[in-house]
Amino acid sequence: MMRTRPLKVALLGCGVVGSEVARIMTTHADDLAARIGAPVELAGVAVRRPDRVREGIDPALVTTDATALVKRGDIDVVVEVIGGIEPARTLITTAMEHGASVVSANKALLAQDGPALHAVAAGQGRDLYYEAAVAGAIPLIRPLRESLAGDKVNRVLGIVNGTTNFILDAMDSTGAGYQEALDEATALGYAEADPTADVEGFDAAAKAAILAGIAFHTRVRLDDVHREGMTEVTAADFASAKEMGCTIKLLAICERAADGASVTARVHPAMIPLSHPLANVRGAYNAVFVEAEAAGQLMFYGPGAGGAPTASAVLGDLVAVCRNRLGGGRGPGESAYAALPVSPMGEVVTRYHISLDVADKPGVLAQVATVFAEHGVSIDTVRQSGKDGEASLVVVTHRASDAALGGTVEALRKLDTVRGVASIMRVEGE
Amino acid sequence: MMRTRPLKVALLGCGVVGSEVARIMTTHADDLAARIGAPVELAGVAVRRPDRVREGIDPALVTTDATALVKRGDIDVVVEVIGGIEPARTLITTAMEHGASVVSANKALLAQDGPALHAVAAGQGRDLYYEAAVAGAIPLIRPLRESLAGDKVNRVLGIVNGTTNFILDAMDSTGAGYQEALDEATALGYAEADPTADVEGFDAAAKAAILAGIAFHTRVRLDDVHREGMTEVTAADFASAKEMGCTIKLLAICERAADGASVTARVHPAMIPLSHPLANVRGAYNAVFVEAEAAGQLMFYGPGAGGAPTASAVLGDLVAVCRNRLGGGRGPGESAYAALPVSPMGEVVTRYHISLDVADKPGVLAQVATVFAEHGVSIDTVRQSGKDGEASLVVVTHRASDAALGGTVEALRKLDTVRGVASIMRVEGE
Repeated sequence: MMRTRPLKVALLGCGVVGSEVARIMTTHADDLAARIGAPVELAGVAVRRPDRVREGIDPALVTTDATALVKRGDIDVVVEVIGGIEPARTLITTAMEHGASVVSANKALLAQDGPALHAVAAGQGRDLYYEAAVAGAIPLIRPLRESLAGDKVNRVLGIVNGTTNFILDAMDSTGAGYQEALDEATALGYAEADPTADVEGFDAAAKAAILAGIAFHTRVRLDDVHREGMTEVTAADFASAKEMGCTIKLLAICERAADGASVTARVHPAMIPLSHPLANVRGAYNAVFVEAEAAGQLMFYGPGAGGAPTASAVLGDLVAVCRNRLGGGRGPGESAYAALPVSPMGEVVTRYHISLDVADKPGVLAQVATVFAEHGVSIDTVRQSGKDGEASLVVVTHRASDAALGGTVEALRKLDTVRGVASIMRVEGE
Repeated sequence: MMRTRPLKVALLGCGVVGSEVARIMTTHADDLAARIGAPVELAGVAVRRPDRVREGIDPALVTTDATALVKRGDIDVVVEVIGGIEPARTLITTAMEHGASVVSANKALLAQDGPALHAVAAGQGRDLYYEAAVAGAIPLIRPLRESLAGDKVNRVLGIVNGTTNFILDAMDSTGAGYQEALDEATALGYAEADPTADVEGFDAAAKAAILAGIAFHTRVRLDDVHREGMTEVTAADFASAKEMGCTIKLLAICERAADGASVTARVHPAMIPLSHPLANVRGAYNAVFVEAEAAGQLMFYGPGAGGAPTASAVLGDLVAVCRNRLGGGRGPGESAYAALPVSPMGEVVTRYHISLDVADKPGVLAQVATVFAEHGVSIDTVRQSGKDGEASLVVVTHRASDAALGGTVEALRKLDTVRGVASIMRVEGE
């Protein structure tokens, strides 16, 4: 029962991901048609540089006028792989207003304007899918939104940025410093010329906002996500981590508070035990741990970026959206009914690993321990090592709030005997 | 915009999974209603022993007449967690004929009669969902069917039976023999009194048939799945595996042939390198590796059984099916358009680890090597160790067909100098 009129797809952007989407739509056209129940046809490709040769794409389909393309009215699905906020936001909105459903890979836009875009989709009765926006090829948004729809997600803990994982993995395995590992990542094409979005955690923070929103049925704005990059992680931090049986990962962590009444979302480097499955995620791979009340601990692992993996996620969404158009249904829209408050970082409770440079004289440990006690931060272990009148103290705490830890560190800095706070790192996944 | 009339759910079976489904439906009623867009109401519970106390379930809902319950006509969704072929098959069929959609956790039934049940669902315009049938709480069927709908899956390689993984993990970590590890699993409740379905691979084979069917868009019958249990795996096999840097897992493997024109499905114990993520799947956990053309390597990990995890998967399906009923759509049905031939085990190509007990005299290795060469099986490594006139030869082959290996072993057994074939184990995941 194959419908004969093809579904028309407009592609916005034809870079690494877009060209792969176009290629698969052509080479696997029969499979896609069988799975959808109707053929899909590439009806237009909007690009910035029309003169560039695009293998396998009919030049007649290429246009620089993306706005005209999404306004055509005969487009069933718009696939947006431009990235960035504008013109993507206006194009997606216009596309839905002109009757198209949308598949996007745009994490920055979804993190910033997800609610507004979902409102347009709902108002127009269109689908807005974006599996490719988080963790590339790894099915994550659909499992969270649909497979776990009958469960209560309490925690999402993941490596969602391949560039930083590549750098941290290199630092861990070679003992290299940050700059050296970044240079290697850049040379190998794992890091962009300007790596800011990755290494400062902006990319991961956008993904954390999207994941927290879906997991907790609550709007989580990008500003709600506490963000720390990984540019200050040192070889010494890795050495300390190793002594604790840990490694260091840049983690996106979305948590429901113990009382269930609020949630938090944050991105920062953290020590994680080598026995934790996330510790073994190598290179540019991504992996996300999900803890749900009934399901228990789940993990999703795979390539978090790249043309073909991202195209796989885009095409999975394309098939779903096309099926919905044929069947008359719509996929799940925004679910923000829980509307839980998003707590600031100060209320996050976790463990800390703190390295202090201190004077090597009697009573220092007592002073330091007193400061922790005064701020209600309980110490788990202390390791002291001295050389040439200087000493270092490594303190690992029990679970404490970030605010209490912050107060502790501020007070420690004021001690005459504390020459410096060498590093503060959270310990997760225990 | 909450619809006021609740959707009515009939529960068939109220054992470990069913009681957990009922409990979550009650305790999380508000969340389910918000996610579905209408309240869901438990309208009846069919059980065999109505006199048993069922906490939290209104006794007025309990009935022994499952047939009358599914024929009521006002039931929106039937949740089947009885297991086994009959009466589950007749009840599910009757339910769909009387207007209900169905959520099932029944791997045996889906593996055996999936096509017939899907035909009824399609004919009646109803949904038939069964995420819980494979790998418990792990979202796997939905990701394969929907997230990867635009990709080409080439391989599914997984640990899909928790009981056998618990036993093999215990053998690996303690050096115990099979019987001792089985006894421990039984004592701890990980193995049933009659463990046949698990240890002989029947359970995993049913899951392999379901996964292969979905992954390859091809009907794969239970009889098409080559099945070997793990009762003959010995402590000596684990010792050999360790020497190779491997461990042993009972794997379900669904593969597309290199030319893409046929598929295979099989369940057997296999050596797998310690560096492979599946090697680190401990205890009763499940994990499934999926290799797709565009997505690359994905892994899904989590609890493969248990009341709450299975209930999580059932409830995810329940939300989806209820949403479809409200929205007027239907989820994906059977997709078997590819109709690829399913090749027999003889055509499977993999590597082998063969332990031979041989006479400790000159020329034996030459004889053995000749037999391999005559059957076109290329040898990768040989390890010889002798003691007291006897010797053992461990041969690891390059990739060869199962038929060629079978012929090789048959010929080896006929050699005077080969006293016995101690073990033959496939090597996967390299």
